[in-house]
Amino acid sequence: MPHDRIRCAPLRARIVDAAAAAAHIGPGQTVAMSGFTGSGYPKQVPLALAERIGQAHDAGEAFQIRLLTGASTAPELDGALAKVDGIALRLPFQSDPDTRQRINDGSLAYIDAHLSHVAQHAWFGFYGEIDVAVVEAVAIREDGGIVPSTSVGNSKTWLDLAKKVIVEVNTWQPEGLEGMHDIYYGTALPPQRRPIPLEHTGDRIGETALRVDPDKIVAVVMTHGPDRNSPFSPADATSELIAGHLIEFLQHEVARGRLPASLLPLQSGVGNIPNAVLAGLAKSGFRDLTAFTEVIQDGMLDLLRSGVLASASCTGFAMSPQANEAFKREIDFFRGKIILRTQEISNHPELVRRLGCIGMNGMVEVDLYGNVNSTHIMGSRIMNGIGGSGDFARNGFLSIFLSPSTAKGGSISSIVPMVSHVDHTEHDVSIIVTEQGLADLRGLSPKQRAKVLIERCAHPDYRDALQDYFDRALRDSYGKHTPHLLPEALSWHQRWLDSGSMLG
Amino acid sequence: MPHDRIRCAPLRARIVDAAAAAAHIGPGQTVAMSGFTGSGYPKQVPLALAERIGQAHDAGEAFQIRLLTGASTAPELDGALAKVDGIALRLPFQSDPDTRQRINDGSLAYIDAHLSHVAQHAWFGFYGEIDVAVVEAVAIREDGGIVPSTSVGNSKTWLDLAKKVIVEVNTWQPEGLEGMHDIYYGTALPPQRRPIPLEHTGDRIGETALRVDPDKIVAVVMTHGPDRNSPFSPADATSELIAGHLIEFLQHEVARGRLPASLLPLQSGVGNIPNAVLAGLAKSGFRDLTAFTEVIQDGMLDLLRSGVLASASCTGFAMSPQANEAFKREIDFFRGKIILRTQEISNHPELVRRLGCIGMNGMVEVDLYGNVNSTHIMGSRIMNGIGGSGDFARNGFLSIFLSPSTAKGGSISSIVPMVSHVDHTEHDVSIIVTEQGLADLRGLSPKQRAKVLIERCAHPDYRDALQDYFDRALRDSYGKHTPHLLPEALSWHQRWLDSGSMLG
Repeated sequence: MPHDRIRCAPLRARIVDAAAAAAHIGPGQTVAMSGFTGSGYPKQVPLALAERIGQAHDAGEAFQIRLLTGASTAPELDGALAKVDGIALRLPFQSDPDTRQRINDGSLAYIDAHLSHVAQHAWFGFYGEIDVAVVEAVAIREDGGIVPSTSVGNSKTWLDLAKKVIVEVNTWQPEGLEGMHDIYYGTALPPQRRPIPLEHTGDRIGETALRVDPDKIVAVVMTHGPDRNSPFSPADATSELIAGHLIEFLQHEVARGRLPASLLPLQSGVGNIPNAVLAGLAKSGFRDLTAFTEVIQDGMLDLLRSGVLASASCTGFAMSPQANEAFKREIDFFRGKIILRTQEISNHPELVRRLGCIGMNGMVEVDLYGNVNSTHIMGSRIMNGIGGSGDFARNGFLSIFLSPSTAKGGSISSIVPMVSHVDHTEHDVSIIVTEQGLADLRGLSPKQRAKVLIERCAHPDYRDALQDYFDRALRDSYGKHTPHLLPEALSWHQRWLDSGSMLG
Repeated sequence: MPHDRIRCAPLRARIVDAAAAAAHIGPGQTVAMSGFTGSGYPKQVPLALAERIGQAHDAGEAFQIRLLTGASTAPELDGALAKVDGIALRLPFQSDPDTRQRINDGSLAYIDAHLSHVAQHAWFGFYGEIDVAVVEAVAIREDGGIVPSTSVGNSKTWLDLAKKVIVEVNTWQPEGLEGMHDIYYGTALPPQRRPIPLEHTGDRIGETALRVDPDKIVAVVMTHGPDRNSPFSPADATSELIAGHLIEFLQHEVARGRLPASLLPLQSGVGNIPNAVLAGLAKSGFRDLTAFTEVIQDGMLDLLRSGVLASASCTGFAMSPQANEAFKREIDFFRGKIILRTQEISNHPELVRRLGCIGMNGMVEVDLYGNVNSTHIMGSRIMNGIGGSGDFARNGFLSIFLSPSTAKGGSISSIVPMVSHVDHTEHDVSIIVTEQGLADLRGLSPKQRAKVLIERCAHPDYRDALQDYFDRALRDSYGKHTPHLLPEALSWHQRWLDSGSMLG
């Protein structure tokens, strides 16, 4: 089995168990791992490292690492290391309950970064040196090239920059992934940068494996385990209403001549609402669509099968176990339709702008003037992170944010007087969709935005209170460009903290 | 005189006075004008239009236009039209006292947009149709090509999209400007976009004049008047301290190998602090620098003369009257050093990222966690607008914000618990500089940022109060990732509104 997957003979001699591999990682080191949205992360070395750290802590020794990845990972990585308090600094994204708890109790330092920025900031030296890279692979080629598994993320950069490399070869991942990747080696540090020669979502501009200096590979670990493939809930009525409003809008834009019949490359966040949008597109009559996105989830695989989607570019997967089984069976079909890129390329401002992506992302809340909070609960608790939403919202053709109009059983309104944290500014938000309706903010001034957001998107339970705040702000605000009553602007959030509901 | 400047004979027949030209503009129309930071805006037609509008209003008739430009203009344009309440909607930037007053009293709708977004949003149809373009020119060529004057801004797009065109040929502007422009005609709507073939600040990728269908030119007006060339104040001690901290930092980054000896292309906002930075660079020993920026001001001309700056790319000028006189005398020298581009290109995310620009912009305030407000006073009153600061802050190599640590005689702190408006999120800000010192936020989590901002940048009069807020938030905040006490977060601003000072 190792011989099939490790075709570079000298590297077979470096096969060790996870504990031996983890022994290469020491306290205080910066460790960069593969993994993006629960796909393609190392499965065994982080667990072994967590065990080592736990033992060190039991013995009264300090042992924490600085942990960099592509994006979110899984309980075996973020979860295990957070549980033993093994992470001093985490970036650029997480969605793990244990990690989140440590961040929000103040014991874990977290940098929430634009996913398109991470590789270059590592190259610029902004995160210091990278001691060890740990990446999951499907195979190691004869020439030592690493074939990534179900995500690419920042692995190219980690392999380039790390002093030592540990490769996990996961035999659970299908060998048929080989050839699906496109690793671009044309990036450089300024002033040596050149245009990225990608003009269509399906263009191949790189190589199908990751380069690495074989001398840096200190350990190879054989693993056999699944990605964090979580089931999706069936679309609920709210998600279907949101999807319906959005698809009607896209059809309207085509009819008005503002979008081509095959739209523009779609970027879609992960979750039940995006999945409902994808399911809605399947029935909408659209054909020959394309996706230039971070993550391919179940709905997109269905669209590729049916031909509604002609091709899809991404940096990782988020599949349900069922979808993953089907994906494995049909992998030869999907290898002709899907391209897995580094996240520097999947989210690159140059490409998102050139292609004119339609960015569709979830949000926590939006305020009357179109500022969007994607990350913070009540201004101080991080949920997950901004991820790539900013890369697409700022640079794409349309910046669309989707959310139910309320959360937590109606106790929280997603439309608030002032957001408690800003991730996407008023300058970067064009469309808001809730189950109530769609607000088209293009070409509107702040006060005009407030009007349509209250009318179209707010839940009826909160509409009067929003209108009342807006009316009084319009009368009493210091300035009337973005009217606000500062002592009240964040009072809805405080009321929720005090009473469990934003309702007065 | 007209014959020298209007070399396309048929167009000489369309010379009319400003009043006749302004008669082509009707109530409710969308009018797109040239002009960027007080340079290259039309001088006479807007005044004539304002007079017409004033007369209509006196007669009880409704008359307002929707006004688009490159960026800010001057009293003869924004000021005159705002005074007669002639503007229903204004975008994408302004810095005019009368316009600002109308916006803040709520009677003028204003859209504050990223300057790199404006041309494409016009092309996308987000602003509706453009009825009339009014652009200033130095000359009209034999082939009808329009030679822009001291700014390009969005004029290419306005001439492409407008149904009617009015050209002001300003004989005050030196003919020697001809050849300094570079108008790129390779932009397209997605999915037809291709890489922009610019790799160095000095690359020429376009043409030296603006194309226009001569049949659309309904009027040519001869003018002779200066740009809004305002004197700069001599650098004060505060500006010099800020400049000193920044230059020391840049030297440190070169020493650490994170920046090349000739740095990376500089982008600099306009004003006295940037001018002090440029003056500091002149004495710093740096050589062969480049600028890829929006606006060239006095200090940059000096750097070009001395060879500290090898070349500069921009979309407009902001010169003092004195600097302008010298510029005119030495225009042949500067034509070899300066390239004037459309603002779509000067601020393009693709190019700002590729070149790795060092973005240096002013700010109103920054909060403990690195969120920057560039536009709003006390959360509701607009100052000017975001301009191009976001184009550079998001996509450049370094995102630097500069400000004195206090304003209004010390009654306002530029470092606050929570900013009252966000233009640049915590994800987009790397360096903060005040006269107190420099905070390097790269690689820091929110709480780590708070520590260095309080220590390095806050004014001593506010340091204890900031530390006190931070300590109490750390103890009592709902979440400890971005600790906040919501009832207090904006209380400094409210205190200033109530008492005239943020000091307790």
